[in-house]
Amino acid sequence: MAKEKKSALKEKKGSSVSEITNLSSIESIKEKRRSKINTDTLVSSILNKDITALSRAITLVESKNPAHLEKANTIIKACLPHANKSIRIGITGVPGVGKSTFIETFGKHLTAKGKRIAVLAIDPSSSLTKGSILGDKTRMEDLVKDDNAFIRPSASGDSLGGVARKTRETIILCEAAGFDVIIIETVGVGQSETTVHSMVDFFLLLKLAGAGDELQGIKRGIIEMADAIAINKADGDNLKHAKLAKIEFNRALHLYPEKTSNWQPKVMVCSALKNEGIHAIWELILEYVTMTSKNNYFNEKRHEQNKFWLIQTIEEQLKSDFFNRSDIKKELENQLYLIETNQTTPFAAADYLLGLKTK
Amino acid sequence: MAKEKKSALKEKKGSSVSEITNLSSIESIKEKRRSKINTDTLVSSILNKDITALSRAITLVESKNPAHLEKANTIIKACLPHANKSIRIGITGVPGVGKSTFIETFGKHLTAKGKRIAVLAIDPSSSLTKGSILGDKTRMEDLVKDDNAFIRPSASGDSLGGVARKTRETIILCEAAGFDVIIIETVGVGQSETTVHSMVDFFLLLKLAGAGDELQGIKRGIIEMADAIAINKADGDNLKHAKLAKIEFNRALHLYPEKTSNWQPKVMVCSALKNEGIHAIWELILEYVTMTSKNNYFNEKRHEQNKFWLIQTIEEQLKSDFFNRSDIKKELENQLYLIETNQTTPFAAADYLLGLKTK
Repeated sequence: MAKEKKSALKEKKGSSVSEITNLSSIESIKEKRRSKINTDTLVSSILNKDITALSRAITLVESKNPAHLEKANTIIKACLPHANKSIRIGITGVPGVGKSTFIETFGKHLTAKGKRIAVLAIDPSSSLTKGSILGDKTRMEDLVKDDNAFIRPSASGDSLGGVARKTRETIILCEAAGFDVIIIETVGVGQSETTVHSMVDFFLLLKLAGAGDELQGIKRGIIEMADAIAINKADGDNLKHAKLAKIEFNRALHLYPEKTSNWQPKVMVCSALKNEGIHAIWELILEYVTMTSKNNYFNEKRHEQNKFWLIQTIEEQLKSDFFNRSDIKKELENQLYLIETNQTTPFAAADYLLGLKTK
Repeated sequence: MAKEKKSALKEKKGSSVSEITNLSSIESIKEKRRSKINTDTLVSSILNKDITALSRAITLVESKNPAHLEKANTIIKACLPHANKSIRIGITGVPGVGKSTFIETFGKHLTAKGKRIAVLAIDPSSSLTKGSILGDKTRMEDLVKDDNAFIRPSASGDSLGGVARKTRETIILCEAAGFDVIIIETVGVGQSETTVHSMVDFFLLLKLAGAGDELQGIKRGIIEMADAIAINKADGDNLKHAKLAKIEFNRALHLYPEKTSNWQPKVMVCSALKNEGIHAIWELILEYVTMTSKNNYFNEKRHEQNKFWLIQTIEEQLKSDFFNRSDIKKELENQLYLIETNQTTPFAAADYLLGLKTK
């Protein structure tokens, strides 16, 4: 570099630029070129179904380094025209229902048919523990070794919204890498099902046949979101219970208003452990895709999801920008106290706090 | 005024102020004094249970004139220490269920016991039609003539949030005017039940006994909010159906998780027309108030409602400030198009739009 600076080529009267500018702009151009080569290479590798490149790109998406995120955005943008081609399946169910076994059996069933599948996860606890429900890959021993399967643990993040964004962007990368089916797993806790539901085409709820009180413990919102309920561990002595549970759930599902997709949610029984009923679930999903593609609901839903995430992201940011201001935090406490002591109303307090916005 | 200006008293050397300042500040002081007298008089009249004063204050709350709203805020603030002492009851049900007849019979039952009751309404359609579900007061002929009853049609407004604010503030004024029970009526449409639910202590859902398919048409969220369901028009041939419906609803209610209040919602049958079962509903409400006062849920719920309205008002304002900007509106359309054509992601689009915020 120093050599180049002293080169006779630079000895032009009147038009020399400052050394520092010269140096830093050369560096900057070089850096950009290097970065461009890197991201271009990554993108073409991803499009060539290179799993290592895919993993590296996902790592950039999950990074907290702004330079990495810039690269990630470039890669995602380049991948976008090649995305949107998979079937996205959300799978939820309480711990113990056999999600890992189900995904392993279901995944192997698909790869045996020549499908390439990616398994992602949204784990609401991972933002706290920095762990992941898929961290223990040993639970999917066979699938992990399968060349046509790609398993990626849940991104960690400070908020469910942050994790959701990373997962949504990872879906784009996986689709660009030619995966036919993307499975997104989540645990039946809090808001995570709603989050998964808003990024998948088909939402599958795994249940167990219990002691007759199947309906008691269910969060109604989740049943309402389900496109199918699969009663797992329907084998041996359990089979009878499972069939009874199927009747109960079918009855419960009929209480809900018809879906805009015109799809009537189905209840299935299966045993992931014994590989029974798994093919029927895949057939059902294909039936759903065929039907909703015909009536155009499939595409409409994806458009709605895109719009949802756009508005959602903006609204979350507007709120956090406001409520995380230290002056607002302090004054919010004061105003809450004034409300509780009947000195002001919630509306007058809101007006007051909003008045601080431009200060 | 012109006379005063020419008065010899003004002829002081060196200390005269500009005529204009003098004039306008005198006017301003006089206006403030008049206004203060007005609002002070209104407040003390309200506290003396003067219905005309109450009506005038509500008209100020509902006004779009900023000067009126300023007065309204002063009055509300002065009334606040005297508020919070009523039982607030929300009543909802689809058109035809007999809400007006129920409120009339229920209201007469209470005034006969020496209670003073106020009936307000939240009508989601009024913002469009500028009409009101209570506009036709002839539907409550007897109650309207009752000195211990005060009926006020729904405020109109550009948004449900705006109407809600006016109703919440009207509750404060009615409570300061010594009303023991405040009934807030709404039609079973859209978000209005949620709005009413978040400003009352007890939420009553009116239903009819149908032809055996009682559960079909119900919005699950509304049942979940109900502290009691009253099956109305349970008279004559209908009585048998109503009792069957009661069993079905009781069954449905047991499917829901227990409420944090520990209150188990009840199903009642009544005939507002024949004044049957009305007293039992009032007794049930008193039972609820006693129980939730003991376990402190009653006050906790009001605190939570206050906090809800504070946060809700701020969030709505933040969103409308942002999305109503003409530049944002235009760019939002552009970004949506770019998303649909796979040229950007919802997240990148959100980042871009938020970047315009400070411009």
